[in-house]
Amino acid sequence: MTNNLELIKEIARSSPSKIILLVIDGLGGLPHPETGKTELETANTPNLDGLAAKGICGLSDPVSPGITPGSAPGHLALFGYAPISFNIGRGVLEAIGIDFDLQPGDAATRGNFCTVDKAGLITDRRAGRISTEKCAELCQLLDGLVIENVKIIVRPVREHRFIAVFRGGDLSPDVSDSDPQQTGVAPKEFTPTQAIATRTAIIANRFVAQTKTTLSGHSPANMVLLRGFSQRPHFPTMGDIYKLKPAAIASYPMYRGLARLVGMEILETGSTIEDEFRTLTWNYSNYDFFFLHIKGADSAGEDGDFARKVADIEEIDNALPKLISLQPDVIVVTGDHSTPALLKVHSWHPVPVLLYSQWCRPDKVSEFSESACISGGLGRFPATQIMPLAMANALKLNKFGA
Amino acid sequence: MTNNLELIKEIARSSPSKIILLVIDGLGGLPHPETGKTELETANTPNLDGLAAKGICGLSDPVSPGITPGSAPGHLALFGYAPISFNIGRGVLEAIGIDFDLQPGDAATRGNFCTVDKAGLITDRRAGRISTEKCAELCQLLDGLVIENVKIIVRPVREHRFIAVFRGGDLSPDVSDSDPQQTGVAPKEFTPTQAIATRTAIIANRFVAQTKTTLSGHSPANMVLLRGFSQRPHFPTMGDIYKLKPAAIASYPMYRGLARLVGMEILETGSTIEDEFRTLTWNYSNYDFFFLHIKGADSAGEDGDFARKVADIEEIDNALPKLISLQPDVIVVTGDHSTPALLKVHSWHPVPVLLYSQWCRPDKVSEFSESACISGGLGRFPATQIMPLAMANALKLNKFGA
Repeated sequence: MTNNLELIKEIARSSPSKIILLVIDGLGGLPHPETGKTELETANTPNLDGLAAKGICGLSDPVSPGITPGSAPGHLALFGYAPISFNIGRGVLEAIGIDFDLQPGDAATRGNFCTVDKAGLITDRRAGRISTEKCAELCQLLDGLVIENVKIIVRPVREHRFIAVFRGGDLSPDVSDSDPQQTGVAPKEFTPTQAIATRTAIIANRFVAQTKTTLSGHSPANMVLLRGFSQRPHFPTMGDIYKLKPAAIASYPMYRGLARLVGMEILETGSTIEDEFRTLTWNYSNYDFFFLHIKGADSAGEDGDFARKVADIEEIDNALPKLISLQPDVIVVTGDHSTPALLKVHSWHPVPVLLYSQWCRPDKVSEFSESACISGGLGRFPATQIMPLAMANALKLNKFGA
Repeated sequence: MTNNLELIKEIARSSPSKIILLVIDGLGGLPHPETGKTELETANTPNLDGLAAKGICGLSDPVSPGITPGSAPGHLALFGYAPISFNIGRGVLEAIGIDFDLQPGDAATRGNFCTVDKAGLITDRRAGRISTEKCAELCQLLDGLVIENVKIIVRPVREHRFIAVFRGGDLSPDVSDSDPQQTGVAPKEFTPTQAIATRTAIIANRFVAQTKTTLSGHSPANMVLLRGFSQRPHFPTMGDIYKLKPAAIASYPMYRGLARLVGMEILETGSTIEDEFRTLTWNYSNYDFFFLHIKGADSAGEDGDFARKVADIEEIDNALPKLISLQPDVIVVTGDHSTPALLKVHSWHPVPVLLYSQWCRPDKVSEFSESACISGGLGRFPATQIMPLAMANALKLNKFGA
């Protein structure tokens, strides 16, 4: 037994009890300079506070103290997968982010349109941040090329960003990047980092050569840079590990994609908070684990909009009674990371966690907030322990050892 | 240096200071629905509270958050041995549980008497839970068979459970189980899981064949199922690691057996709390570490008897002044796991820990209880760190590094 997941897999048992993991993306914040209160502390949240009073609280670190997680590590940790061990390649992550249906064997890369001068040296790595519409137009020009039976599928992401997915034949992701991550030099040739990837590197180089020709009249987007060659990882599923039948409710593709990678079923849903809670209610009888993802607070945080983040949290609090009325055996409310409006980016600050179950041994915390969670009974702990705790509280784990 | 024990071994030093580890089995609990107080919080414990006020408190996880430990992992953690790495086979554990004197090379298995029909298919894996007396009778019939110079020793445990210990010759524990863990099928043949165990598997199969003949007239106990072939593990001793001269006081065989596996000397003792504390006093000058194990609270918890668990804790509190009057340098009071009367089984909830020494840097906790320990200076921490903390407080650890 080399890690915690193997232990959990050994002792997990299926049972009718149900767990809901409500993820308020970017939940944690920083105090507003005028009030000394964070977004969550400013929000009027009687329902979350009531649940905190009956439950047990704490602060969790998605990766480890001081480490700011991206969305993928933040969520993998919540699902119980140590995010440093379970790595997702950049290309795959970008493809997931646009709901691209990656197939086994596909080698995905993340691309930038960029600008090169007459000597072929990069002058702008982002081609002046062309519009998303322009990006889509150019992607259509590049899409569908076939080189040695490998088809290259090109799809726009946002502004200068796109994905190029190589499909067919014996592809390998062990290929270096062409993006030198600096200007004043030429894009790099792809080279195989393992012998097995020689053919993939050759095809990638031919693709870029062809692309350069195609784009020659389209300055500032007259060249591409590719990085993060990767294939869909084979993670053990939540069904395998936890013996759960898990479902995901998320309106953004990235989170659906992450949920799919760990074997969750993806439920169709509308995009408002109300829609997502309704999807939960409608599907409640068919699954025993629900990952319910709400995006708004994170976007507001990234926009530096303190008030909107407060309002988003209040809207979730307002919807909470619908979730509580389902009477799940375990409710966990937390975030995948902090996104303080004051910083306008993801941050390393630990994330408030609230766990409610009949068997949770409540603490004295009666308010769901960063400062109250410090004194919670869960203490400060790694986010990967949330799932084992939820499973235990749902009475879905056998005793370890005699 | 790959683990914490190696570090401790490197810096531990022998000294005249003394440590007492008082283990109240199954100490942690859950709040009574009528009072909101756990067993420990309900109990009147002026002496434990007084010690908490002078000491430092916290909550510890025997294995990791969410994991419910058996007695063996719970105690190994208290002794400082990471319970996932230090594994004890099922047969050995069962033998330890009845004080059986396992010898080097013995291969122990746990057995069930079971019922098979005329076709040899299992109809009841537990032979209708025959009485312990009946089990003892049948064990006598089976005991002492010799096959190819291997003697098979059979001893009753409880109801349908027994142990069969194979002794003599080159035995290996790498043998599959005969217990298929279901009815409607025949017991399985033993097969070697490593080539080295071929002879052991052959002998085990011959033993079971002979047993079937012997038991043929004894329905419902007309067959046996064996599992968990294992040999006594070779753990580093507490003497090796901590340079302690450790002694164990425990009235139940399982805990004496676990203490013996880590090299403690086992002191003869009566079975009441008073007896055990008297044993401590009488032997106090001869050792520098005492593991004092009190069973009652766990049994009361497993019986769902909240009031009896409260009374057991009060009885220990009542005896505590005798222990304190010995003026040990370090006193640790904790449990090996929680056993809430409401759940009637071991549970995953973290366990209150109290550490008293002259050098402990006291916190503000003045009551020994689950809720008070949340705010204790020890925080929430793995139980394997209790021994290093006790050693440090006894000034038995040198500085690490220059």
